[in-house]
Amino acid sequence: MNSKKPLILISNDDGYQSNGIRTLVSFLTDFADVVVCAPEAGRSGFSCAFSVVDYLLLKKRHNIPDCEVWSCTGTPVDCVKLALDQILVDRKPDLILGGINHGDNSSVNNHYSGTMGIAYEGCMKYIPSIAFSSCDYDPNADLSYLRDYVRLIVKKVLTDSLPKGVCLNVNFPKVEKFAGLKVCRMGWGSWTREVEACKHPRGFDYYWMTGHYRNDEPDATDNDQWALAHGYVTVTPSKIDVTDYEVLDKMKTWESL
Amino acid sequence: MNSKKPLILISNDDGYQSNGIRTLVSFLTDFADVVVCAPEAGRSGFSCAFSVVDYLLLKKRHNIPDCEVWSCTGTPVDCVKLALDQILVDRKPDLILGGINHGDNSSVNNHYSGTMGIAYEGCMKYIPSIAFSSCDYDPNADLSYLRDYVRLIVKKVLTDSLPKGVCLNVNFPKVEKFAGLKVCRMGWGSWTREVEACKHPRGFDYYWMTGHYRNDEPDATDNDQWALAHGYVTVTPSKIDVTDYEVLDKMKTWESL
Repeated sequence: MNSKKPLILISNDDGYQSNGIRTLVSFLTDFADVVVCAPEAGRSGFSCAFSVVDYLLLKKRHNIPDCEVWSCTGTPVDCVKLALDQILVDRKPDLILGGINHGDNSSVNNHYSGTMGIAYEGCMKYIPSIAFSSCDYDPNADLSYLRDYVRLIVKKVLTDSLPKGVCLNVNFPKVEKFAGLKVCRMGWGSWTREVEACKHPRGFDYYWMTGHYRNDEPDATDNDQWALAHGYVTVTPSKIDVTDYEVLDKMKTWESL
Repeated sequence: MNSKKPLILISNDDGYQSNGIRTLVSFLTDFADVVVCAPEAGRSGFSCAFSVVDYLLLKKRHNIPDCEVWSCTGTPVDCVKLALDQILVDRKPDLILGGINHGDNSSVNNHYSGTMGIAYEGCMKYIPSIAFSSCDYDPNADLSYLRDYVRLIVKKVLTDSLPKGVCLNVNFPKVEKFAGLKVCRMGWGSWTREVEACKHPRGFDYYWMTGHYRNDEPDATDNDQWALAHGYVTVTPSKIDVTDYEVLDKMKTWESL
């Protein structure tokens, strides 16, 4: 790979065989070299988790046209780390992408998302990084209508880069026609009724994680929840430095406790 | 549990049998009711991951004096969710604690840490939450010398609470005598050389995640890296809202692309 095209590393949390990652690759191969390193199977909700104890395997795959594909037994973050260390040895990627995720990662889902984990990992390696997610949870959804916005955002970031320590959380509403693009903050929301208790045929209790999302700012019009509900593509610049500087200043009094 | 003592829920990412969690409980039971719900075994590096697909089991344990102990087959975040939904049905905790972790969670480790995952989860449930971690990686280290600072910080938060959407990342240096307490930002650092490739006896390659931490701000004196290296206990207020508002303002021009 000594082309003059930019090099894009792509991972996801739905697995290397998912529809979303194949669609994302298809949007980019005419102007970029693309390498995929993605989990063997679904790793939704894996956040920034990486494999501290387990060993990892990499396998070359051939399921997506026009790009090099690897699957990894680990988490989305493992995929990025392994790709940078073992696959892209001679050439650092110009951009790292997560997605397209089947399911949105707006609001507090930012924290649970393996797709965002990929973007955070790239960002911690000082490489411009973007997570793409769709509000359409159907794993077989036709996502080809996201093409124009994905290409626009990718090309913009390849041209302008991103500030140090900031990656993008991009979410697409499930609509016939987009209302436009909104650069907006993440909204406040909560997952409620998150556990479904069941009885095993052998008599013991077991539990599934589930949940119902509650918008905790139903009147706000400046966050990703409002924008997605009104048909906008949302772009939320998300920070690695999670320090709350305002609170830090106020808490300085603790130093003399 | 109808006592007038505050109720503290504790989890960790080293497992319910770890030394750190037992030590933390022992610091608190004279003034608080304590319930532990922690992973069956080590879940280091699990970040905010939760179990989207796998079922979970809870087991009552009896290994820590003066408190109710449960082990869970899932992640640290699963432990918090299950405890709130299934164990603490009649009484919401006044405080959620993660730790004491065997290994520090300063700098970018904030993002990978299961101990911080516990604090973020509590914070997303609008419950004051603190992660405690020690720079001593020895799982058998005597952590009893952290008692005074842990009690001071816990009592301060029980009295004053914490602002909405902010939890505390507290790290202890491994020193004979603490220099004091610093409320400080997270430092910038990177993990490098993160993969060790090995050859399996059956001929294929496999990989371990490892890594060497590099301080990317060696001259800074206002971050957790400096403070820990100089013997201070560090307190970093960490935010749920990861939106970068400065970058957001600048990126508003994207809306007319």
